[in-house]
Amino acid sequence: MNPITTEALLEALRWRYATKMFDPSRRIPEPVWTALEQSLVLTPSSYGLQPWRFMVVTDPGVKRALVPHSWNQSQPADCSHHVVFAAREHMDEAYVDRFVAQACVQRGLAPGALAGYRNMMVSDVVTGPRSAQAFEWAVRQTYIALGQFMTSAALLGVDACPMEGIQPSGYDEVLGLKGTGYATVVACAAGYRAVADRNASVKKVRFETGEVVQNV
Amino acid sequence: MNPITTEALLEALRWRYATKMFDPSRRIPEPVWTALEQSLVLTPSSYGLQPWRFMVVTDPGVKRALVPHSWNQSQPADCSHHVVFAAREHMDEAYVDRFVAQACVQRGLAPGALAGYRNMMVSDVVTGPRSAQAFEWAVRQTYIALGQFMTSAALLGVDACPMEGIQPSGYDEVLGLKGTGYATVVACAAGYRAVADRNASVKKVRFETGEVVQNV
Repeated sequence: MNPITTEALLEALRWRYATKMFDPSRRIPEPVWTALEQSLVLTPSSYGLQPWRFMVVTDPGVKRALVPHSWNQSQPADCSHHVVFAAREHMDEAYVDRFVAQACVQRGLAPGALAGYRNMMVSDVVTGPRSAQAFEWAVRQTYIALGQFMTSAALLGVDACPMEGIQPSGYDEVLGLKGTGYATVVACAAGYRAVADRNASVKKVRFETGEVVQNV
Repeated sequence: MNPITTEALLEALRWRYATKMFDPSRRIPEPVWTALEQSLVLTPSSYGLQPWRFMVVTDPGVKRALVPHSWNQSQPADCSHHVVFAAREHMDEAYVDRFVAQACVQRGLAPGALAGYRNMMVSDVVTGPRSAQAFEWAVRQTYIALGQFMTSAALLGVDACPMEGIQPSGYDEVLGLKGTGYATVVACAAGYRAVADRNASVKKVRFETGEVVQNV
């Protein structure tokens, strides 16, 4: 493992901003997108359960159709890849079993080898304390993915705009998510800033480090 | 802005894992920690409102005191820096005004220059649609910080273990958060893996890309 420098990290985090105007003529090159797609897939989640689905919208018609459900902001239409983060609405045993089966295959274990782990997860997110808030629990996990995605994009020199100001049910309809067990939570447009986007040069506003970080 | 390579990104994301055993003798060097601290401070949030507080615990006694509130897992005690993510419980006009004042100072604007922006935020998170769920809205933002932090740590070669399995009220008590308007949400231990941690070599389990990513 070869770490990057602290300077490379901070340069990227300071360079990024919530891009208001994308250059509609620029597309994220395939190898860069493939890495960003993997940053989504590799996101850590509670128990490793990955209670999410990522809809990556590049079709021009669908992108335009999402604009009215995005407070008429133009980012979904003008960006290169519009990523919609959907969270699983309920947790059931079948889902946990599918994950455990995948784990056994990928780790070369006999079926049943992870029964204890499986039962622990079921007794929490399916029948236990987290089951009543399974959707919000899943939503929180998708926000980890949003964080990992934005950080990764910045490091690869890709601009992004996180968008909470969307109508999830409108997104669900356009993307055919209704009835799938997944619901739109948040979106993030990715691509390249337009030269005309004056927001790129506006100073980032943050509370002082001493106000938000407390050392104990 | 000099992007890192896609290989550097993916190497780090594949290298990381939820570290179960930290080497208690290793401490994150000051310059590396300073960068990770800034990855927290620079995290994007809804409207830029940063409704969070990060408690960074390095005091050995406090770290040990958090173990019983962490299902007796040893990571809080053995890691180098134990980061506790706390979210703001309520949103009020005073908070929004403090943020707007900070924005005016940092951007060199006259007081009042951002009145429209200020009122838009108040009419959403203080008196409008998001006010009823202000805490959960804040929690979601802290999960962006968790994602950015874990990605940043991996890229700098620092191990981490996200911990949802904690008792927030116990954490609040130990850390003196009660009555501050902030409440513990999740934690993340950071430091260096112990040589003996066999989890480091266990294969990462993820659903197939085609199962979680849908191209539209």
